[in-house]
Amino acid sequence: MPSDIYEESLEYHKKFPGKIKVVPLTPLSGPRDLALAYTPGVASSCTAISKDPSQVWALTGKRNRAAIISDGTRVLGLGDIGPLAALPVMEGKALLMNALGGVDAIPLCIDEKNERQFIETVSRLAPSFGAILLEDISSPKCFSIERALASALPIPVFHDDQHGTAVVVLAGLLCALKLTGRDDPSGVRIVVCGAGAAGHAIASLLHAYGFSKISVLDSHGALTPARAGLDEFRAELASWTEKTEHADMDRVIAGADVFIGVSAPDILTGSHVRSMAKDPVIFALSNPYPEIKREAALAAGAAVYGSARSDWPNQVNNLLAFPGIFRGLLDSGATSVSRKMKIAAAMAIAKIAQEDGLSKDKIIPNPLDARVHLAVAAAVARTAEEEGLIRKK
Amino acid sequence: MPSDIYEESLEYHKKFPGKIKVVPLTPLSGPRDLALAYTPGVASSCTAISKDPSQVWALTGKRNRAAIISDGTRVLGLGDIGPLAALPVMEGKALLMNALGGVDAIPLCIDEKNERQFIETVSRLAPSFGAILLEDISSPKCFSIERALASALPIPVFHDDQHGTAVVVLAGLLCALKLTGRDDPSGVRIVVCGAGAAGHAIASLLHAYGFSKISVLDSHGALTPARAGLDEFRAELASWTEKTEHADMDRVIAGADVFIGVSAPDILTGSHVRSMAKDPVIFALSNPYPEIKREAALAAGAAVYGSARSDWPNQVNNLLAFPGIFRGLLDSGATSVSRKMKIAAAMAIAKIAQEDGLSKDKIIPNPLDARVHLAVAAAVARTAEEEGLIRKK
Repeated sequence: MPSDIYEESLEYHKKFPGKIKVVPLTPLSGPRDLALAYTPGVASSCTAISKDPSQVWALTGKRNRAAIISDGTRVLGLGDIGPLAALPVMEGKALLMNALGGVDAIPLCIDEKNERQFIETVSRLAPSFGAILLEDISSPKCFSIERALASALPIPVFHDDQHGTAVVVLAGLLCALKLTGRDDPSGVRIVVCGAGAAGHAIASLLHAYGFSKISVLDSHGALTPARAGLDEFRAELASWTEKTEHADMDRVIAGADVFIGVSAPDILTGSHVRSMAKDPVIFALSNPYPEIKREAALAAGAAVYGSARSDWPNQVNNLLAFPGIFRGLLDSGATSVSRKMKIAAAMAIAKIAQEDGLSKDKIIPNPLDARVHLAVAAAVARTAEEEGLIRKK
Repeated sequence: MPSDIYEESLEYHKKFPGKIKVVPLTPLSGPRDLALAYTPGVASSCTAISKDPSQVWALTGKRNRAAIISDGTRVLGLGDIGPLAALPVMEGKALLMNALGGVDAIPLCIDEKNERQFIETVSRLAPSFGAILLEDISSPKCFSIERALASALPIPVFHDDQHGTAVVVLAGLLCALKLTGRDDPSGVRIVVCGAGAAGHAIASLLHAYGFSKISVLDSHGALTPARAGLDEFRAELASWTEKTEHADMDRVIAGADVFIGVSAPDILTGSHVRSMAKDPVIFALSNPYPEIKREAALAAGAAVYGSARSDWPNQVNNLLAFPGIFRGLLDSGATSVSRKMKIAAAMAIAKIAQEDGLSKDKIIPNPLDARVHLAVAAAVARTAEEEGLIRKK
């Protein structure tokens, strides 16, 4: 991407402030419209919901409305820049969810960093929404916040930095493994580098899918049960990741089939890649500066290379997942998001890439391809129904 | 209004759930749009706001976005039906503010009745919004909630059940007094019946305008400094309302020029009206059943009769005020709402009614007349600028 994209984007934001707008769903052209939409007529909808709360889904916009919520503590690669400065990102996410998923997405930046009070605040907002997307919240509190909200609320809560990334990584990985002839997930050795929001979710989702040989690295090396001082989320990973007696990054990477980086720029070298199994798959997702540059990875023998960059092939982009996931959650009346739904979303994305024909530089579909979001929505809705994780009709 | 309006409105709500929707402000037609609206381009707007928070007004939708917030504790005449059942009203208000004021209005029903925690919750939502409308919150906590938020937040906070009503009553009263030849506000004796949200705000705004002979009645009679057990908000009214030694409703009403009811059905009798000064003005705003019916009031000699009902002439309807007020607040970059702004809004509404020609059955303009909202917006914005109650540019 040319560097003037930043200048151009500033002008774009001045020209289209908010990036989304609100419009009437119905004309307001005379006193009868007023009486139907507002007083006195509206009282009948209020009374109906008061008598039977499930009527809120039929009589209001709750069924198609999602909140995009952040506390601004970890915005893009910019860090803790606060709720005001996070607003352009939440508005961007709302635009994408609206344009690609048809969801009435509302950007809400919350001025509260305390974990407990943030959870309380978001809980109190639930009546107006059918689902909640959490975004750009620092780790590790993002884990406990999402779990507390998901367990407290009767609507789905989805932290995109965790699960959106994990879904697209799984989709891309399925395609990369197919392309490199690795058919049995249980035989594939995977190294996830980074144990923050994305790393935790990626490792957990790959494990749930059926990959069993997964190691997770953080800045101190591999997570192992023996390591002292692990927080509860890293300890959780250590409990089922591949048993290893050494935590040394070089030794963990040697012989691996897949490297997935969600960590820091330039930490993977050509020697690392050469030490991996034949035809290794490299996803270097640190953004905007990847763990290893595309050219270097390919030169060292990578069979497939993906990154978070939009100017290189194989962009692993959350945008492939969240609009369709939310469309599917809302359409099915889902009450939560399950691992099976995320796996179904990943498989739907992978299926489209495979139908279009895989190649080294084309393992992931175009996120502006409407088929992707429709397929993801259908897969998520079907799975929610199969699992019975939907509200009573 | 025929009673089947309630049935028809239920069908209308099923057909147009939410009554508003979100749409993109700009097309998303290729990778360049993505790069401008989202990553990587959006980072420049985040960084700009992080460095200079005032940039949020230029680079995001905050400048045109208002929250419509309720806790559902006093919805229409239905009482404490809770946040879910309040949602159709907030969505209706959002539709009206959007259609008539061009504001991106977002309905938010908050699941929290505790006053302090409600205030905290709304405060934390402020980053995403340029102004906040509070609605359908029970009295007396509506007073303390509004005051706490207005003093804590750098954006305007406006409780419509108080001030929207007060603005339209003042507008209607100015026209009614002109029509009945009462030119000097200081000579007009006014009885406000009801000391809840609307009664308090009406009495206070009329007093601020220059009416000095105002009595306020609650269910125990006139508020007087001598009365025991007044809460702080009633005591506030008692401190400046007309001094009287008796609290008896009949004696307070006798000889009055104006009766403004925001209380309960059928409490004003024909005898009351006949006991008032010649050509009395009656606003019987209890909704949907007024303090006295139109026919009875006119038969007893009322020169002008207004009510909250849309099926009778002279509807005193908040809708005349809030869309233009919020348009004006957002356009001027107002940091709060002042009494002068409310008076300016009322005078703008009255001016249009007067220009169109006053008559007994036409003292208030049509709320769907776009001129009203434009005039109110201009008056509020001009006053905010004159008072210097606007953010630094």
